[in-house]
Amino acid sequence: MDLKSFIRDIPDFPKPGIIFKDVTPLLKNPEAFKGSIAELKKAASEWNFDIIVAPEARGFIFAAPLALEMNKGFVPIRKPGKLPYKTISKSYSLEYGNATLEMHIDAIEKGSRVLILDDVLATGGTIKAIAEMIEEAGGEVVGIITIIELSFLEPRKKLDKYRVEALIKY
Amino acid sequence: MDLKSFIRDIPDFPKPGIIFKDVTPLLKNPEAFKGSIAELKKAASEWNFDIIVAPEARGFIFAAPLALEMNKGFVPIRKPGKLPYKTISKSYSLEYGNATLEMHIDAIEKGSRVLILDDVLATGGTIKAIAEMIEEAGGEVVGIITIIELSFLEPRKKLDKYRVEALIKY
Repeated sequence: MDLKSFIRDIPDFPKPGIIFKDVTPLLKNPEAFKGSIAELKKAASEWNFDIIVAPEARGFIFAAPLALEMNKGFVPIRKPGKLPYKTISKSYSLEYGNATLEMHIDAIEKGSRVLILDDVLATGGTIKAIAEMIEEAGGEVVGIITIIELSFLEPRKKLDKYRVEALIKY
Repeated sequence: MDLKSFIRDIPDFPKPGIIFKDVTPLLKNPEAFKGSIAELKKAASEWNFDIIVAPEARGFIFAAPLALEMNKGFVPIRKPGKLPYKTISKSYSLEYGNATLEMHIDAIEKGSRVLILDDVLATGGTIKAIAEMIEEAGGEVVGIITIIELSFLEPRKKLDKYRVEALIKY
């Protein structure tokens, strides 16, 4: 399936000069959405893992169906103050300023094998922070999977410790 | 399946006196997560609809798998500034202050039949705002479905125009 044809370019979002890759046309089309999950499953089926972790909010849209398809649990990563139970957190640098992500302290069992998913892999900063948070909790990151990789931002440089799979590359 | 046993009570979140219903133990257990989607599907299968709409972020976790299971498209509702294409928006009152939600202008075709899903139905204010936004876009709200209904907050009073289904009631 040509997933790329369901991704819409939005020029100058979120700021001038950036072309945003919009997945909402794909989500609206049941066959395309199904196709994206099938391709994620095909890529992830080579990996031996126990649980899928994804950051809010668009990551949830692909990670939840993939977890169900592959009979795995799902762990949400959220912005500060959103998770109700005790959390561990991780701060990381953005182009301007910092960001923080949180995960429940009981989300990852020691020794569990974790697949990280996000819809778009850009600089890799968010995913790297999530990977480190999982490792600090005693989990092992077996791979990173994404619908869209913005290769020109060289996310794999930051993630060179990890195996990375992307369905669509720009 | 006893879904209720996978919901964790978190006292005093997000503020003192409130008992938050935490769905993360359910998401972490593949059988329980699968069971919740199966029960949503059973409830929704009585309704004739074209598309599923859900607000970020936890709504996405249940709406995306349900849309795929039922061969429907999925439309995300987001906080201001998150959707990249042209949007329509709706503001509504909260206990203190206001909130605004956005939807892409091409998300809902005129005359399409829409199911709204959220994980927790509390006062009903968010869902009512979404229903009105869908109607303003020319869609028809055929029903509202939720994992958890906080009946003591009487959300159905605000939503008396609509059919509402809940898997778990408190």
